[in-house]
Amino acid sequence: MKKIKIDAFSLLEKVREEKPIVHHLTNWVTIYDCANIVKVMGGSPVMAHAREEAGEMAQLASSLVINIGTLTEDFVEAAIAAGQRANGKGIPVVLDACGCGATHLRTQKTAEILREVKVDILKGNASEIAASAGADVLTRGVDSAKVKGDLREIAGSLAEKKTCTVVVTGKEDIIVNRSALYIVKNGDPRMAQIVGTGCMATSVIATFAAVENNYALAAASGLVVFEIAAEQAAAKTAGPGSFKTALFDCLWALTRKEVNRFQKVEG
Amino acid sequence: MKKIKIDAFSLLEKVREEKPIVHHLTNWVTIYDCANIVKVMGGSPVMAHAREEAGEMAQLASSLVINIGTLTEDFVEAAIAAGQRANGKGIPVVLDACGCGATHLRTQKTAEILREVKVDILKGNASEIAASAGADVLTRGVDSAKVKGDLREIAGSLAEKKTCTVVVTGKEDIIVNRSALYIVKNGDPRMAQIVGTGCMATSVIATFAAVENNYALAAASGLVVFEIAAEQAAAKTAGPGSFKTALFDCLWALTRKEVNRFQKVEG
Amino acid sequence: MKKIKIDAFSLLEKVREEKPIVHHLTNWVTIYDCANIVKVMGGSPVMAHAREEAGEMAQLASSLVINIGTLTEDFVEAAIAAGQRANGKGIPVVLDACGCGATHLRTQKTAEILREVKVDILKGNASEIAASAGADVLTRGVDSAKVKGDLREIAGSLAEKKTCTVVVTGKEDIIVNRSALYIVKNGDPRMAQIVGTGCMATSVIATFAAVENNYALAAASGLVVFEIAAEQAAAKTAGPGSFKTALFDCLWALTRKEVNRFQKVEG
Repeated sequence: MKKIKIDAFSLLEKVREEKPIVHHLTNWVTIYDCANIVKVMGGSPVMAHAREEAGEMAQLASSLVINIGTLTEDFVEAAIAAGQRANGKGIPVVLDACGCGATHLRTQKTAEILREVKVDILKGNASEIAASAGADVLTRGVDSAKVKGDLREIAGSLAEKKTCTVVVTGKEDIIVNRSALYIVKNGDPRMAQIVGTGCMATSVIATFAAVENNYALAAASGLVVFEIAAEQAAAKTAGPGSFKTALFDCLWALTRKEVNRFQKVEG
Repeated sequence: MKKIKIDAFSLLEKVREEKPIVHHLTNWVTIYDCANIVKVMGGSPVMAHAREEAGEMAQLASSLVINIGTLTEDFVEAAIAAGQRANGKGIPVVLDACGCGATHLRTQKTAEILREVKVDILKGNASEIAASAGADVLTRGVDSAKVKGDLREIAGSLAEKKTCTVVVTGKEDIIVNRSALYIVKNGDPRMAQIVGTGCMATSVIATFAAVENNYALAAASGLVVFEIAAEQAAAKTAGPGSFKTALFDCLWALTRKEVNRFQKVEG
Repeated sequence: MKKIKIDAFSLLEKVREEKPIVHHLTNWVTIYDCANIVKVMGGSPVMAHAREEAGEMAQLASSLVINIGTLTEDFVEAAIAAGQRANGKGIPVVLDACGCGATHLRTQKTAEILREVKVDILKGNASEIAASAGADVLTRGVDSAKVKGDLREIAGSLAEKKTCTVVVTGKEDIIVNRSALYIVKNGDPRMAQIVGTGCMATSVIATFAAVENNYALAAASGLVVFEIAAEQAAAKTAGPGSFKTALFDCLWALTRKEVNRFQKVEG
């Protein structure tokens, strides 16, 4: 791996101009943050989870997030309907396998969604991706756990098997599909001190996928932009509460100069 | 239209003194913000959406918000039960037609609620109100869209037809019923940069309607107060995250002097 | 009653070290705040309310919160399943009787949970605890109401009857069980100016109960720590929005010196 330069800012600029609609079926914990992070980038978040409208709303959108953080049977049914409708129109689908591996329901439903819907980007932390791949993993709630085996290999072979882009977030983010591998090294430890950064990262990735159909590049660019904003927010604040407030400010104000200067990407 | 002066602050003062209970059946995205905006004004927000208690809770309240932002069949059933119970006791009902026009479900359910419940104040952005009225509209997710036809006329004839007060929020807010028309020109562009200001505006209006049964005056006063707070918050902050935090601070601290000085109302 | 000293900070330190998983079945209004307050103390919050997984998730946790703030039939069913599974493994169960007394559903379901689950810590404001105990109470939404009778006696006899620890929050917090009585006098009026401090207090208590099986001590220590953080946040901020942001910062940064210096406990 060697350092590379990607034009992440141009995609943020495209989001600011095109204001894509990003439809979410997400969890009740971070639903506001998911919506707001899309909004501060200039996108137009939509949240609709009723079976009667999830599919119709998905068709109006430029990308779809499915985040199983507080899943129920009804929720997954609506998510699959929305995902299939998005598939039919070529709208990118991003799945956050939140908590996969922690309970049987989450592991089964992740598998079911991956079977019933063509997921374009599958995103999770190390243990969630490992559990999605059926790998050995010692789960610990919804936070990341110890994974046996090489994470890049697990992610790469899962991407191969599901013909999708796999994103593993962590100290280093891995973005991999058949034709590309990016490692994003931006970010700040403070991101792990609050609830919501993982879910927001997924919504950012989906927003970028709405304007760029090279999904590995979209995901890597989204993470670069989000994590540079986090670095700036951390530098300005003294604790997790004010960090979160500043994260919205910093992402909203982010400039090309900053993105080009601070990005740390290998590939 | 000419500039007029309304005593918006006296209603805020009344809220601070009487601490009215404002019952919500609202969406999962901004539910916290809706509750908190009522609280910082001195009101007592209640959120209860189970069919088994929504009606009973509505009877304890001084006003009721129905916001269909993340509606389901169950939710609407409970909302109608709560609305009818509120009607029976003369408690004002405020409907936020969030996303009306975007999907068939939202358009149908808005119509169903308007048929089954005597809605006292119907509130939405331009495309939501136009869709509620059955007017031609090009929807775009839950954000406002292009509306064909004159908005004041559409709102006015809808208010006439439904014997209610109609509120259209936007750069200029239109508040209209059979006997009154107010245009509120307060507010700041930053309000559109975060998720939640539309829903919070509805909760503010309902809180004011809890203490003032001239609903056009209540709605206009609520918007004046909320939007002056937003102007002050915008003046103090450099981005959307800190703007939102400051919005709660500024509304909480708002004085009579400020409200009288900065209000921009025509009628 | 006389002033006593408890080692509340050592329990916070233990939370920071052990990072206990705290499972929640909670309400949709403050669900983010409940998760985040656990996170900023170093704990690992989990939220899962599907009947199919609530029990399994509870078994992975070190404590369980049941908060009935936006209860439905399905929710209570899942909560009871989770509570019983927690009971089977000796995992402490904390019940926030949010809104108990306001509607029949809340009063009945509180009683049902107390009958079906061995609740280790029952927490509420004055009217919620009085309603849980079947005492005479004039409810007022979910905010506290006027209670007839001596609160300490009501709480004490409820603790006796249910063999649990009862926590009544208010200007003075009462923590009582068969063998202990603590009065915590920390806190700031600003806590009552925002939505969420009551729910967060419950999550803090559950997090402390995850690392200390003397539940009266755990609850008293959790409240001391949370309320000293609130005092510091109030001292630094000028309104309810920035107070809330600072609350997370201050709890995250809290030191032994501060906890020992500012605690106000009687017993």
